[in-house]
Amino acid sequence: MADLRVFCDAQLDEGALKLLHEGIAPHELVVTTQGAKSVLAQGPLDGAMLESDIALGQPSVESVLKAKRVRWLQVTSAGFTRYDTPEFRAAAKARGLIVTNSSAVYAEACAEHVFAFMLAQARRLPLALKARGVAGSAAWMEVRKTSSCLRGQEVVILGFGSIAARLVEMLAPFEMKITAMRRHPSGRENVATVTPENLAAALSTADHVVDILPDNADSIRFVTKDRLGQMKRGAIFYNIGRGTTVDQSALVESLHAGHLAAAWLDVTDPEPLPEGHPLLNAPNCFMTPHVAGGHLNEGETLVRHFLENFQRFVRNEPLDNRVM
Amino acid sequence: MADLRVFCDAQLDEGALKLLHEGIAPHELVVTTQGAKSVLAQGPLDGAMLESDIALGQPSVESVLKAKRVRWLQVTSAGFTRYDTPEFRAAAKARGLIVTNSSAVYAEACAEHVFAFMLAQARRLPLALKARGVAGSAAWMEVRKTSSCLRGQEVVILGFGSIAARLVEMLAPFEMKITAMRRHPSGRENVATVTPENLAAALSTADHVVDILPDNADSIRFVTKDRLGQMKRGAIFYNIGRGTTVDQSALVESLHAGHLAAAWLDVTDPEPLPEGHPLLNAPNCFMTPHVAGGHLNEGETLVRHFLENFQRFVRNEPLDNRVM
Repeated sequence: MADLRVFCDAQLDEGALKLLHEGIAPHELVVTTQGAKSVLAQGPLDGAMLESDIALGQPSVESVLKAKRVRWLQVTSAGFTRYDTPEFRAAAKARGLIVTNSSAVYAEACAEHVFAFMLAQARRLPLALKARGVAGSAAWMEVRKTSSCLRGQEVVILGFGSIAARLVEMLAPFEMKITAMRRHPSGRENVATVTPENLAAALSTADHVVDILPDNADSIRFVTKDRLGQMKRGAIFYNIGRGTTVDQSALVESLHAGHLAAAWLDVTDPEPLPEGHPLLNAPNCFMTPHVAGGHLNEGETLVRHFLENFQRFVRNEPLDNRVM
Repeated sequence: MADLRVFCDAQLDEGALKLLHEGIAPHELVVTTQGAKSVLAQGPLDGAMLESDIALGQPSVESVLKAKRVRWLQVTSAGFTRYDTPEFRAAAKARGLIVTNSSAVYAEACAEHVFAFMLAQARRLPLALKARGVAGSAAWMEVRKTSSCLRGQEVVILGFGSIAARLVEMLAPFEMKITAMRRHPSGRENVATVTPENLAAALSTADHVVDILPDNADSIRFVTKDRLGQMKRGAIFYNIGRGTTVDQSALVESLHAGHLAAAWLDVTDPEPLPEGHPLLNAPNCFMTPHVAGGHLNEGETLVRHFLENFQRFVRNEPLDNRVM
């Protein structure tokens, strides 16, 4: 294969950049310093991309559409909402552009993050870490008698991809009843599945409802007031998918009414929430600022995942985490 | 078997008491209202115990020694420190008294509790739940770039019993290197073991050191300044065993020096710590007030566990969780 030029607008630390450079050689790497500030923000147009065969990072839709020489785009996040339109898909198909994402890179961290939420809730950590009562005191009793165990409980996962599959593996020792909702089950999931049409029954008995939905036309406000109402009283809702998948006003209402016992959210709409947003003061609402995918050496993991795909690309093999 | 009389000084709610009563029938149940306030405190002497064959709860050492008719004591906790003396053991042996504990009841909750600590630390929950930065901001970067994954890391567990065995099961999907320290390994542990003599090497590479030691003459201040020093810089220390097993001054020092990256403690010495105790202000020291074993319906779980043993006792079979 002739020399390839790889355009990268991802902000990588020195170690990750070195790894990328060495991994691509003898092919060429073009790094823009005008890249996106994080894996979640979109980068500006860069002329160098027009001369490249492969793009890695978060280039704008316009620049990908203009850079017709690019045959493969690897997005440095699990989400790829901005490219996920009929127009972009049609353009990609027409010119044979392959699009992959980095969901494998974030699956472990995201699954551990929501599992941390589940265990922190079961063991009442937000309350317990502040309590200092002697055994038998009221403060102590409140924590001790309301703590619970995950073992044997029921979970519904909304959306089934690499994160959900990994979460299912992690929950195996807990002997839970797990059901994943997927629009088009493949039959190869490592867990029982339901379609949205049959979701209500599963929601009605679940102790935990975990939202891992991506942001797209089908998922927007999927967690409606009705679906929150279908969850059993005392259920816990978690979201590490996208904030736009939830009717947040209905969620606030449910928490105030004590229907949901708690909500744990890594994502909201918008991010961050503006001062005074009702979710900020909703009871038992615990939030982290879209950090579920973060982990030490994230840049290196991203690069290693890209390089594995790069070798496949060079050998003309199917790419991992292909989304278009 | 002739009718047995069971003495119970455990504080049980109505449901648990009903279950106990029905489970024992047609044998007799004597419940004292003078019982211990919690499973952790010792109850006063009660005359009814002198007339009983079996005792369930936390009777004082003196009353057990006096109540010579009692042939079996089931302690309603995992810990049984007050009975764990050469004198008591000798007296128990001499009169054929069987002692069991309730460690099976608390293994799940305790293992989930320390696992919640481990994941909360990896995902930086105490920091992340307070952070509200936009992606790319300094506050956001601090959380996102210092979060980590448990997968592939190393754990040393100090003490191997039902809690450790259950924790090992829970960690299986995380592909960690796990080593348990046990004074007298049986060879039937579900994990690699080391004895105290060979502990230093394991400590030097562990990312996580989990103390599940009981309180006894061998374990007191087992976690010395030396052993804390043997742990690698950046290691995390967890304690759900007993506070007396740790040199707390050395722990405070290690946290201040930044040698240990964090400590998560469910137990301290004493409990609760007095105002102004240096552990309360040690950096990255997270504490819960001896609640690791707590769970919804704890009373019922205790009773069910006792009743299983009661049936074995009636059938003259070996009892579960026997400690003497």
